[in-house]
Amino acid sequence: MPSVVVIGASGYAGAIAADLLWRHPQFELAAITAREDAGRPLHELYPHHRVPLTLEQLELDRVGRADAAIVAYPHGTAAPVVAELLARGLRVVDLSADFRLREVSVYEHWYVPHPHPELIERAVYGLTELYRAEIAAAALVACPGCFPTAAILALAPLAAAGLIADVVIDAKTGVSGMGKQPRDANHFVAVTENVRPYGVGAHRHMPEIDQELAALGAPVPVTFTPHLLPIDEGELLSCYVTPTRALSQAELEGLYAERYAGEPFIELVATAPGVRDVRETNVCALNLHADERTGKLFVFAAIDNLWKGTASQAIANLNLMFGLDEGLGLR
Amino acid sequence: MPSVVVIGASGYAGAIAADLLWRHPQFELAAITAREDAGRPLHELYPHHRVPLTLEQLELDRVGRADAAIVAYPHGTAAPVVAELLARGLRVVDLSADFRLREVSVYEHWYVPHPHPELIERAVYGLTELYRAEIAAAALVACPGCFPTAAILALAPLAAAGLIADVVIDAKTGVSGMGKQPRDANHFVAVTENVRPYGVGAHRHMPEIDQELAALGAPVPVTFTPHLLPIDEGELLSCYVTPTRALSQAELEGLYAERYAGEPFIELVATAPGVRDVRETNVCALNLHADERTGKLFVFAAIDNLWKGTASQAIANLNLMFGLDEGLGLR
Amino acid sequence: MPSVVVIGASGYAGAIAADLLWRHPQFELAAITAREDAGRPLHELYPHHRVPLTLEQLELDRVGRADAAIVAYPHGTAAPVVAELLARGLRVVDLSADFRLREVSVYEHWYVPHPHPELIERAVYGLTELYRAEIAAAALVACPGCFPTAAILALAPLAAAGLIADVVIDAKTGVSGMGKQPRDANHFVAVTENVRPYGVGAHRHMPEIDQELAALGAPVPVTFTPHLLPIDEGELLSCYVTPTRALSQAELEGLYAERYAGEPFIELVATAPGVRDVRETNVCALNLHADERTGKLFVFAAIDNLWKGTASQAIANLNLMFGLDEGLGLR
Amino acid sequence: MPSVVVIGASGYAGAIAADLLWRHPQFELAAITAREDAGRPLHELYPHHRVPLTLEQLELDRVGRADAAIVAYPHGTAAPVVAELLARGLRVVDLSADFRLREVSVYEHWYVPHPHPELIERAVYGLTELYRAEIAAAALVACPGCFPTAAILALAPLAAAGLIADVVIDAKTGVSGMGKQPRDANHFVAVTENVRPYGVGAHRHMPEIDQELAALGAPVPVTFTPHLLPIDEGELLSCYVTPTRALSQAELEGLYAERYAGEPFIELVATAPGVRDVRETNVCALNLHADERTGKLFVFAAIDNLWKGTASQAIANLNLMFGLDEGLGLR
Repeated sequence: MPSVVVIGASGYAGAIAADLLWRHPQFELAAITAREDAGRPLHELYPHHRVPLTLEQLELDRVGRADAAIVAYPHGTAAPVVAELLARGLRVVDLSADFRLREVSVYEHWYVPHPHPELIERAVYGLTELYRAEIAAAALVACPGCFPTAAILALAPLAAAGLIADVVIDAKTGVSGMGKQPRDANHFVAVTENVRPYGVGAHRHMPEIDQELAALGAPVPVTFTPHLLPIDEGELLSCYVTPTRALSQAELEGLYAERYAGEPFIELVATAPGVRDVRETNVCALNLHADERTGKLFVFAAIDNLWKGTASQAIANLNLMFGLDEGLGLR
Repeated sequence: MPSVVVIGASGYAGAIAADLLWRHPQFELAAITAREDAGRPLHELYPHHRVPLTLEQLELDRVGRADAAIVAYPHGTAAPVVAELLARGLRVVDLSADFRLREVSVYEHWYVPHPHPELIERAVYGLTELYRAEIAAAALVACPGCFPTAAILALAPLAAAGLIADVVIDAKTGVSGMGKQPRDANHFVAVTENVRPYGVGAHRHMPEIDQELAALGAPVPVTFTPHLLPIDEGELLSCYVTPTRALSQAELEGLYAERYAGEPFIELVATAPGVRDVRETNVCALNLHADERTGKLFVFAAIDNLWKGTASQAIANLNLMFGLDEGLGLR
Repeated sequence: MPSVVVIGASGYAGAIAADLLWRHPQFELAAITAREDAGRPLHELYPHHRVPLTLEQLELDRVGRADAAIVAYPHGTAAPVVAELLARGLRVVDLSADFRLREVSVYEHWYVPHPHPELIERAVYGLTELYRAEIAAAALVACPGCFPTAAILALAPLAAAGLIADVVIDAKTGVSGMGKQPRDANHFVAVTENVRPYGVGAHRHMPEIDQELAALGAPVPVTFTPHLLPIDEGELLSCYVTPTRALSQAELEGLYAERYAGEPFIELVATAPGVRDVRETNVCALNLHADERTGKLFVFAAIDNLWKGTASQAIANLNLMFGLDEGLGLR
Repeated sequence: MPSVVVIGASGYAGAIAADLLWRHPQFELAAITAREDAGRPLHELYPHHRVPLTLEQLELDRVGRADAAIVAYPHGTAAPVVAELLARGLRVVDLSADFRLREVSVYEHWYVPHPHPELIERAVYGLTELYRAEIAAAALVACPGCFPTAAILALAPLAAAGLIADVVIDAKTGVSGMGKQPRDANHFVAVTENVRPYGVGAHRHMPEIDQELAALGAPVPVTFTPHLLPIDEGELLSCYVTPTRALSQAELEGLYAERYAGEPFIELVATAPGVRDVRETNVCALNLHADERTGKLFVFAAIDNLWKGTASQAIANLNLMFGLDEGLGLR
């Protein structure tokens, strides 16, 4: 049974990855590490996960004996750890932004100087539904951001068909996406009974969405604005597409049905989904509407930002990398 | 001191109107009526309003002695009552949709056969900031819907300048907008930790927004989708405008500053507003962003759907109709 | 593989029971029925359960071919169905109050005339931890109410040791306990940012708690008050015991550790639990505090009202009735 | 018009006090100060307060020219400022715990070494309903903690009549009571869909409640446990009294009606109150239940922890200190 370590398991996504691996029938969770909470049992931080392991300080010689690693570090700090793990022969799924963008200049414009630009070309973008074969063969998988996961799944069939002339993506997200570090912006009193846009015109997930839509065939800069909602987990993306030509509801539905036929974690649903419908699952629910009044196409996408948007997609990718069924351990 | 009755004070908006009138320095709240809860003290339904009046059955001869009425009935049922009250010489502020749309055919397409089409031309559209003079002189004021209030205030300066080529409005609203009747969709368990689009492509506030934008100079069908959030009051509209020509941030801000100079209840704010910032006020907060990346203009508008979106705007209009300061009794 | 039907699967608890059975490795979910929603796929009502069955009208001849049934009907309506199912030889787990109270007169005082008093003596009270052997042998198991489940588990060790002179139980519960029927009291606007006692001095779970505490050795009428909180699932009981003699913290902890040694779903936790810690689990978390200042003993108990408080406890009991591991299908 | 300064206006309670004074018809808000946010306009921190003043660094010579001060500093840091202000002749309402406890040893047991024990005897305990005359004459008023405010108002009539043999107080509170400093415990994700006891057996408000109940005639140590709820403002106390003799419902109600006759901010309500009923008011709502089954007396008390529990009670006291109507500026 392959052994896996989770590097950075004290954050929300890392802890969920640890939980999924702990219960996984074909992986052994060998160790969990954390930079700040080393020495604390994970259940002290997350009683509901019921993972009876203690967070350790990262010791590369020790964790380097595992077969694979999930790295859940912030951007900029992930790359050096990833480099060390790859050098020791582990297969790595990285949850940070460090290896998502193919152009180092784009990364450095939006983030920081890249610590290991030479590794970028070795990384496969870990959107399971788009890069399944590449993921299976990869040593390094860069899991997409939560918003790009939903946005690209929502738009891929239209992008690939050259049907996107313009698109506005209005995103609504829960507070867990902001991380567990207490801040003014995630104080309960600031969030409850409120809704507020943030990162207006400047969110770092935009270049990632642009990159993938362009790769699919839609080289348009997206309009993308996230809004913070009083929910803990869950993400809803409302995508308003100006198509390059008129599409009927039937044609729109047909396009998606064909593209996503057989996909185990894509649900094409008949009414606009709520995020509760996909909570704590690896599912992306999509709903389609060809608007006769305006000629626009609406695509609504719901995911759990911590699951399909991060941790469970990482496990699905790990399954593929070890020749297992993509959905193993994910119900 | 002019006497005012509230017809339909058992709903959320009617009850707030009653509360505001009860504390108003220049109006006397003469009576409150309800169709279903007649005989019950209002504080039984709404302890926090502390209005020591009892809901009465509507008796037109009795309420007809007042100087003015606020009618808070559902569409289709409001018009007959409004007609009776006008016939008795009262000045009427109607909160329903019955007199908002100028074309009876448009009304009948979206709602029901119109009970009193002959009164439509006597009605003034009660968006205070746009029709102040007409409201002051009107016998019948049709208060806008909550979404149109925010949408039109958000877009009026651009529309009037002929700058809107296309617009997507993504709206987020609290549950109170759905009314107080218990339904599956407003059950706490259905709403908490959830967010969901509704009325996709079919919301009745669209023709109202279209009508007013066209009147201002932007004859474009709006793309408009509301989303239900786990909050009770408050509405945030994120408007994404494709302009007819490029605008800089400074030009955009200048346009709004000029248009809304001196407006007591419009706040142009430097960062994207949350709905908590305007809770239980008559304020519409607007934030502007000229997006260099896409060339689009973003306008974020926050109001309280029950206050500026309904009840407090009604009081502001009533103030104008009786020659009082628009903000009297609204802080 | 034994086949099981869920009678009344359109309510919250019945639907969870169906979901747990659908994924259960050793039971076959043969059918789900509902009185009002027959003909609708269950996922229409509960998309997140992903149970691909359609609710049927109850036909006793058809469901009577199953090996067992979970009945999730309201009190008074459950007993006649239970009687029919028993007559057809099924083993039945009933979630209603109909067979919880051993004295028919007590039942009829708090509820309605009992439709099948002759069956009461055949029923075993389904609190797994207290009646494990009897449940395994029973044809009819009456699952406890959600509050009694937590209250009795919280107090059993003290009651059995004759240590309870008096007890105040202050309960906090989520909205799902009230059922899915929309009502004024579960309207989102009534619940959010609010907390309110209900059923003061008159809650029907009191006689059930009294009965079981008396059976254990504490014949005291409990003081019990539930409060409605703005959460969907979860129940926290704060129990304040006046003991018959002084107890130290160590003695208190020893008493519980001994009584609950080996219990798979009782967690004795070092700090007062939150309901999130046990959400969607069959766990009852207990925290103990011997208060030096007042001499009182505090016991805090957290469960998920729909899981341990209803549906998952039913599955645990069903497991026992068919000789399976109590925790099968419950993680 | 007397001028008032608010020292420490960047916290929740100080900011509300500033807002109430800004709109007060008979006080002038002369200045607002803060230790950490000096230089920032208050509306940047609290847009909804709409107070157009900027937080200043505390300069005693400048603020010392005012007639009165509200001090909203943490315990231990308030006393030195209070001493300086008193020395300059200001009348002071202190919101901290520094002058609430009459015994310096009790204060030092629960808090820190007292910086100014010599001032304790000059302080009047600012529970308006109990010490109205003393407050009017005082130079220094020590506003009660939020829990003691509700607890003492809930129990005073019984305590004064010698009717309390024992009492259990189970308190439920919103997150704002914990202050605005971001912490793990007030992170939205930690609070939503959760409820949790805290400060079990060790909350600092216990000695304050004990002191005042003893002064009234009930020298019993209270059992008191607060619970954190997913609400922002509001506090509900459920008090379970074992009386020294049996009382009927009528006698219980009569006792409270008599004691609180004419009280402008005490509401005796017929059904158990929710905290929403008193949100953003100076009201304490009380509901009474003589429980026939157990002989206990239940008293439910609801207040807004930031208003009656802190800031609005401070304004009421300030009104009394300057000979004004107690409710001026509080609706």
